Amino acid sequence: VDTAVIGLGLIGGSLLRALAAAGHRVVGFDIDPATRSAARRAAHRSGGGGTWRVAETVETAVENTGLVVLAVPLPALPDVWARMTGAGHTGLVTDVTSVKEPVRALAGGRHRFVGGHPMAGRETSGFAAADPGLFTGCAWVLCLESETVLADWLDLAHLLTSLGARVVPATAAEHDRAVATVSHVPHLVAAALVDAAAGDPLAALLAAGSYADGTRVAASSPDLVAAMCGGNAPSVGPALDAVLDVLRAQRATLDGPEPVAALRPLLAPASAVRRSWPPAAGVPGDLPATADALLAAGRAGGWVTAVADDRRSATVVRPDVPAARN
Amino acid sequence: VDTAVIGLGLIGGSLLRALAAAGHRVVGFDIDPATRSAARRAAHRSGGGGTWRVAETVETAVENTGLVVLAVPLPALPDVWARMTGAGHTGLVTDVTSVKEPVRALAGGRHRFVGGHPMAGRETSGFAAADPGLFTGCAWVLCLESETVLADWLDLAHLLTSLGARVVPATAAEHDRAVATVSHVPHLVAAALVDAAAGDPLAALLAAGSYADGTRVAASSPDLVAAMCGGNAPSVGPALDAVLDVLRAQRATLDGPEPVAALRPLLAPASAVRRSWPPAAGVPGDLPATADALLAAGRAGGWVTAVADDRRSATVVRPDVPAARN
Repeated sequence: VDTAVIGLGLIGGSLLRALAAAGHRVVGFDIDPATRSAARRAAHRSGGGGTWRVAETVETAVENTGLVVLAVPLPALPDVWARMTGAGHTGLVTDVTSVKEPVRALAGGRHRFVGGHPMAGRETSGFAAADPGLFTGCAWVLCLESETVLADWLDLAHLLTSLGARVVPATAAEHDRAVATVSHVPHLVAAALVDAAAGDPLAALLAAGSYADGTRVAASSPDLVAAMCGGNAPSVGPALDAVLDVLRAQRATLDGPEPVAALRPLLAPASAVRRSWPPAAGVPGDLPATADALLAAGRAGGWVTAVADDRRSATVVRPDVPAARN
Repeated sequence: VDTAVIGLGLIGGSLLRALAAAGHRVVGFDIDPATRSAARRAAHRSGGGGTWRVAETVETAVENTGLVVLAVPLPALPDVWARMTGAGHTGLVTDVTSVKEPVRALAGGRHRFVGGHPMAGRETSGFAAADPGLFTGCAWVLCLESETVLADWLDLAHLLTSLGARVVPATAAEHDRAVATVSHVPHLVAAALVDAAAGDPLAALLAAGSYADGTRVAASSPDLVAAMCGGNAPSVGPALDAVLDVLRAQRATLDGPEPVAALRPLLAPASAVRRSWPPAAGVPGDLPATADALLAAGRAGGWVTAVADDRRSATVVRPDVPAARN
């Protein structure tokens, strides 16, 4: 077997299907017997889309497997990790959880581990929603640390780009800071906007587009949002401080003599930045497959679309940022 | 002529068309000669949709007119107001600007004035985008103050509900507080989220749904947002303070020993509130057309759908709020 996928929810199930459809030998496992049954039934029905095995334990799933993908929620990772290492797996391991420093700490440099995070959230979940095309065009962060075996990273990037993913090289710290800013803090802010308007039926009646958009993710499960933000607290704290700093500067203008004139220059940069987001993709180019070059591309907002078979170069697309005007 | 509409942008132009289509005699004026020409050409083309006159000055527009609708931006109001009173208009006046206390101060109780605000913002603007159906189902706040002539308020509500609007009774202070909370502060927060992520291409690459939704209105014109928020500074300040209080409470949990457990109870109420917004409409009912009864309905999130021809009662719909669970 080439790959074992542990955890067959939306991400794990989609990866099982995508790998099978691409001709890889793959085995899956899920802690839930009903999910295992569903995955087994789907394997029998699967026609041209390739097929897969479903194991009854973590231990049998990872046996004689080159790559293990841990697609379980963060709280389940330590137990699954212990079972995997207990079963004698010494091959490559990756994961798909949304916070990367805690998993790096769990791995503790003891293993051939490359942390990963596919940015493929959806409103649906579970194996029933699994889709082999989920990763086409999907940004998939692969962590590249001082302890990472570059050949392992490149093998994974080769595999995931072959499934259509845009592989983003980043350190765990860079990843955690970025998602704190663009995902975790927006969830907290949405909840705060709802709280500030709660209990006022007139406000609820007059609320329209800006409220609807700005609070949409406040309807998410509070358990999931608390786990996501609290699990990344060391990065979410400073990211929230950055938002608080801006809001306090705006607040100060409102008590001043000329709030309109004082607010305008505070708001203009954000308007320009938001209008130019998301940036268009630039022209693909090749770079040497070194950790420095890959991480520099990730920091510039670039992503890997292919890794050469000899693992000596990678094709990278960077955002097409218009030259700054003087 | 029944009604003069001063200012033929999206709101004024749509009102001109809607009133004409409903068989009212209506005259329009706009400061821009090109807009006047466009409105005149459209009047000639207008078939079954009724027609209108276009005047060359404010003074000739308001001559012998029972109702004047001021549909100009807030900065233009004082000049238009002076021209209108200078021309000897003594009939009813309303406006459509998004902040109501400053206009109430401008009117100074000197005139038969009822402040209004149709919540009909769109991404398009100008007479070319005018749509006689714009006000169908639209929440249209009509201000009801101690100095308001109730018969004037009811006449306006009768007219606007006949165009399909949901007329919301509120004081200017209540209106300004509500829109600060559900519209103005969400614009400031969206800008802050963009600022906090600006200059980080990796964050821009990993940004997805929660960033896209939470920052959408940050792309608005900074001039318009500054005018809107700064023009309502006395209400936006406290509304922003309410958001800052929640964010600071969230922030405090992130440095604590158990951020996940501490965040969960802070996030749960907002999730429940957002899932139940917008509320369903309840069963329509009639109430006596008194200021107290109308304002109470507005504070409960209700709106007027019809005013009796004898002006003694109004039909009101309140939100269908499920009974609180014990």
